[in-house]
Parts: sequence; C-alpha cells; structure tokens
Amino acid sequence: MSSLPDAVEALITELTRLPGIGRKTAQRLAFHLLKSRSEAPRRLAHVLERVASDVTFCPRCNNLSERGELCTICSAPRRNESIVCVVETPTDVLAIERTGRFDGSYHVLGGSINPLEGVGPEDLALDSLFARIDDGGIRELILASSATLEGDTTALFIARQVQGRDLKVTRLARGIPMGGDLEFSDEHTISRAIQARTDFEG
Amino acid sequence: MSSLPDAVEALITELTRLPGIGRKTAQRLAFHLLKSRSEAPRRLAHVLERVASDVTFCPRCNNLSERGELCTICSAPRRNESIVCVVETPTDVLAIERTGRFDGSYHVLGGSINPLEGVGPEDLALDSLFARIDDGGIRELILASSATLEGDTTALFIARQVQGRDLKVTRLARGIPMGGDLEFSDEHTISRAIQARTDFEG
Repeated sequence: MSSLPDAVEALITELTRLPGIGRKTAQRLAFHLLKSRSEAPRRLAHVLERVASDVTFCPRCNNLSERGELCTICSAPRRNESIVCVVETPTDVLAIERTGRFDGSYHVLGGSINPLEGVGPEDLALDSLFARIDDGGIRELILASSATLEGDTTALFIARQVQGRDLKVTRLARGIPMGGDLEFSDEHTISRAIQARTDFEG
Repeated sequence: MSSLPDAVEALITELTRLPGIGRKTAQRLAFHLLKSRSEAPRRLAHVLERVASDVTFCPRCNNLSERGELCTICSAPRRNESIVCVVETPTDVLAIERTGRFDGSYHVLGGSINPLEGVGPEDLALDSLFARIDDGGIRELILASSATLEGDTTALFIARQVQGRDLKVTRLARGIPMGGDLEFSDEHTISRAIQARTDFEG
C-alpha cells in the first residue's frame, strides 16, 4: 500500500508519461508542486487547459497556432514565401528561427516516414505541402528533415513527388558541426564532410 | 519574436518553474504534451486540479492526506503508535515505507530549520508534534531528519524541547552506506563510522 493520497499517485503516474521522466523524478515534481498547496498545481492546470483549448495547427504550414488562425510566421509580414523550409516538427522551426538567418516560410510535416513505427507518407502533412506547391509561387523547397534514415527517406519521398516541376529542391548541408572535434565525429559524418568539402576561404 | 503561440509559451514558462527543468526540457515536454493535441494536456490538467482541490495535510502527522482526513498511515490499523518517526518531508515517509521495516507512525515537519533561508522552528509542524507527545502514549521519538547541518539542527532543537520527559529519543544510524566504497566515502562519514563501530557478528 502506498502512503500517498490517490490524487498524488494519479499525478505521479501522469507525469511519468512525459519523456525522460521516471518515477523518482515524477515524485520530486509532484512534491514540488504540492509545496505551495493548491497554487502551483492550479496554475499549471490552467495553462494546460489553455493549451488544450487554444492551440491548433496553422492551416497553411501545419506549425502550431492559436484558435485555427495562421501561425505567427505565416501571418508575419515580409517573410519570403517563395522559399519553403520543410521540417519534421515545430521544435525544428524554433531551432531554425533561433539562427535568425532564414526569412522564408516553413512547412511542418509532423514527423518523418518510419515504416517500423507504422508512420507512412499519409500520416504526414504532405497533401497540404503539395497543395501549396500547386498553388504556385514557391521557387525553392529546402528539405530540412533530420539527418537520420527516416529523415532521409522522407526527403527522398518528397523530392520524387515534386520531380519535374519548376522547383529548386535543396537539403541542409552535412558536415562536421561547429566546434566538433574530428576525433569524436563518426565515420559517416567524416566521409560526408570529405565528399562535400568546399574551397578554402582564407 | 517567438514562433510559438502564446499559450505554448505560457506552458513552457510554467514548466521551467519545476525543479531541474530548464527551457529546453520544458520545450520538449510541452511539445510532447501537444503531440496528442488536447488529450494529454487535458488529462494532466485534470489530475492537477484534483490534487489542488483534494490534497490536504493529515491533521495528526502532517503527512499528505485527502480532503482533511487522516493520512493512509495514521488511519491504518496495526501501526505502532508509541513510536513516532520524525521526518522532514512526505518523500521521507515514502522512502522509509519502502523498506517495509518500520511499523510505527510518523510526524512530517515540512522541512528543516534553516536560518539562511529564513526557516525557523515556527515554520515547521512542531507544535502538533509536541501536542502529540503531551497527549501521551508515545514511548520513542526517532529523529530521522536529514544527515545535514539543517537536519542535525532540527533534531537537536527537538531533542532539547522534549528533554526531561519520559521519552526515548533516537537518531538514524550513520555510517558507510550499503554497497558504499570506502574509497569514495567522505572523511566525515568514515570518521562517524569508526566512532560508531559495532561488534563483528560473523
């Protein structure tokens, strides 16, 4: 028998569903929330309810948005809508936006093709991507899916589907990451970096 | 400008208030919750609301309980109520219960005396502990506060307050932890273990 009230047990169980949160961490989080009695749990419950009711997907690019509206990027003025960067998740959009070096628009697939986990092309936001291309105005598609087998498969699938169209299709460069030590880079990364070597700019 | 909806930003901010959760982890958790659209956020919100409204403190021992009732331990039959184990937090109760080697009752202080953080004896559930002792029937008080400066201070404070009463006052044994390597034990632990050495039982 646990010495904890059922409600606390239920909270701990729910927290362990989160990625990287085991039973011990969940317990620590639950007790932290309980320290303030009802205040902290209620505040977190409130923002979760708000997320559950307000957050939707952008009808154009499938990024996160609110109440069915266009996302903050699609509704921003002065973004280059002729370049579309295709990514797997909204987190990828955040990562690219943090660089401040991309002013195009995005298309969020919602994952990558992964037959082992039963994720096929039909599970991704591909129809809406092809519809955007059909609407015209897109000159370049940057396939920024992950540098994994699944990401590559997804990129290949999209590249084949848009073959023959008047569309430049690119992929993010592969190579040694900034600050990356050659000694600790895997052989695939190194061989890609050798193949894709660039002229030295002194 | 963030590319995230306000509701998601609010959720991430709220999650970073939790111990050990930085911005990146909070983002990962928020996106995980959003994967299922509204289902997962709503389920977590629900258990948080339940915790906020139902969880109270046991009127006898100050452990967590529900709706103002006695906690599961105080209301359990066949617990030895003449031995009270005084701990800092409900997590400590869990830790001791897990051993299955203690059938006495508890008293949860809700922290330890820590002048640097402004926690004095008046902030702990000490009045209710002394009231329990006044009520009679308690033969032994196990001071199981942490083996830290604050825990020791708290234990000393309680021991002094109950001095002169017909009450056995004990403290958890200190020593090398099970599986503990002498090489990696600090000198305080080792010197306590030497002082408190016990007869060899072959």
